[in-house]
Amino acid sequence: MKHKDNDNNKKISFVPKTHPRYKSLLNREKVVEALDKGILAKAGLTAHGRGEAFDYLIGEKTTDIALKSIKASAAMLVLAENPVISINGNTIALAKDEIVQLAEELNGKIEVNLFYRTKEREENIKKAFEEDLTIKEKLNNNKIKLLGLNDANRQIPNLDSLRGKVSEKGIYSADVVLVPLEDGDRTEALVNMGKKVISIDLNPLSRTARKSTITIVDEITRCIPLLTKYVKEYKKMDKKALKNIVDNYDNKENLKEMLNYISNRLKTMDLG
Amino acid sequence: MKHKDNDNNKKISFVPKTHPRYKSLLNREKVVEALDKGILAKAGLTAHGRGEAFDYLIGEKTTDIALKSIKASAAMLVLAENPVISINGNTIALAKDEIVQLAEELNGKIEVNLFYRTKEREENIKKAFEEDLTIKEKLNNNKIKLLGLNDANRQIPNLDSLRGKVSEKGIYSADVVLVPLEDGDRTEALVNMGKKVISIDLNPLSRTARKSTITIVDEITRCIPLLTKYVKEYKKMDKKALKNIVDNYDNKENLKEMLNYISNRLKTMDLG
Repeated sequence: MKHKDNDNNKKISFVPKTHPRYKSLLNREKVVEALDKGILAKAGLTAHGRGEAFDYLIGEKTTDIALKSIKASAAMLVLAENPVISINGNTIALAKDEIVQLAEELNGKIEVNLFYRTKEREENIKKAFEEDLTIKEKLNNNKIKLLGLNDANRQIPNLDSLRGKVSEKGIYSADVVLVPLEDGDRTEALVNMGKKVISIDLNPLSRTARKSTITIVDEITRCIPLLTKYVKEYKKMDKKALKNIVDNYDNKENLKEMLNYISNRLKTMDLG
Repeated sequence: MKHKDNDNNKKISFVPKTHPRYKSLLNREKVVEALDKGILAKAGLTAHGRGEAFDYLIGEKTTDIALKSIKASAAMLVLAENPVISINGNTIALAKDEIVQLAEELNGKIEVNLFYRTKEREENIKKAFEEDLTIKEKLNNNKIKLLGLNDANRQIPNLDSLRGKVSEKGIYSADVVLVPLEDGDRTEALVNMGKKVISIDLNPLSRTARKSTITIVDEITRCIPLLTKYVKEYKKMDKKALKNIVDNYDNKENLKEMLNYISNRLKTMDLG
């Protein structure tokens, strides 16, 4: 948690796995690598830094408050008729494998959705998925589907043309959209289309957090495996029980609890 | 305050000056530009993002709490016999001109001090200063001195060789060192050498913040002009009064006030 001039070439490999902030340093390395591969835009690095700061404030662990959001999200995804996982550069950099595993437990739909779309980034992202042979096989077997690359022909209303491009089979027709690390405008536009939006955002004050149907205030590589775990469990439960979980969830309440949690944590922190 | 995929080429010029977050967006553009110029390392972008998050939490303005630190710092700098301003990639990216103006009011000494030093970055930094003709003239007239580039021949004890390289005339012999955006190891090593260290750090919980003699929890482009203003004022005051200002300052107390401030702000923020 400090501003410093770091070596571009420094590798996490030198940091022992027992280092208290190993995971955080590993994630930082992943986003730098994604920038080098043309998957992430430079501004994705500053966005990652903002996330690091908020994760530090919540203690770099999944809180009970976030767990409530994860459970409600799992129930909502299992109940969904046509759920879609929207992914961008930061999500791919950090949690490509975790996203694939979650999609497999659902209908397999993953949609690439870039804040600024260029042909080159699209190509680099496709390559990142296909160069992993396990993922390539899943794509070939239709266990997962990578939408939004050649089929982003529909338009989300009230968003400028490039940012609003989505796939007919994907986000456009989805009833529930999971948007990890999304911006506020897009979240709001999706909600205005009548969709249920589940976001993952470490900043409980962001517009994304406030506008979403459910906000998971947690780090993406920590919470997606938990989300997958509960999706697996909840697929065996009856719909009425799942509907109860969703109905009992209040997003504003959850965000307030998170703000109180951070607030109390700040007051009791040791400066020694 | 959101994770998003941004266009590398998007320029602030499209954002109106009246935009509530204009300054923050401008600064973000400056760090991306510094990366492109080889002044900043990639990790400098994530560091900047962490700073953005904390600045957002304090409300993107200089608090009265920070103002106390600024005044104590100004008094300490005026009283110093050999003050030095240490600068790194992030500082140069954001506040080169502000640093030059402050140095002029002191003894002119600015020392380049990189977390990871490469010949190429040193050259790019030198170029960034010299391509500004006003600054070049000040360098030629000895109004300011850029140390640490060809003369970093001394070593700070207990730091690895590259990070610990400093100039004899600069940090090595300084009694007071101003370190904007510094890391904890270096701050601690400087304090252990018996120096007074003034840091600028938006994270009141960082090791830098906790180890420094005075920590200014404020954004660098906002606080340096204020620091310069008080240095100018305090140069006219008698030393006893200045010593009083320094003696009445308690850094731990100040950091605690800042944590309370953020904590209370979080509890009263509107999620509507």
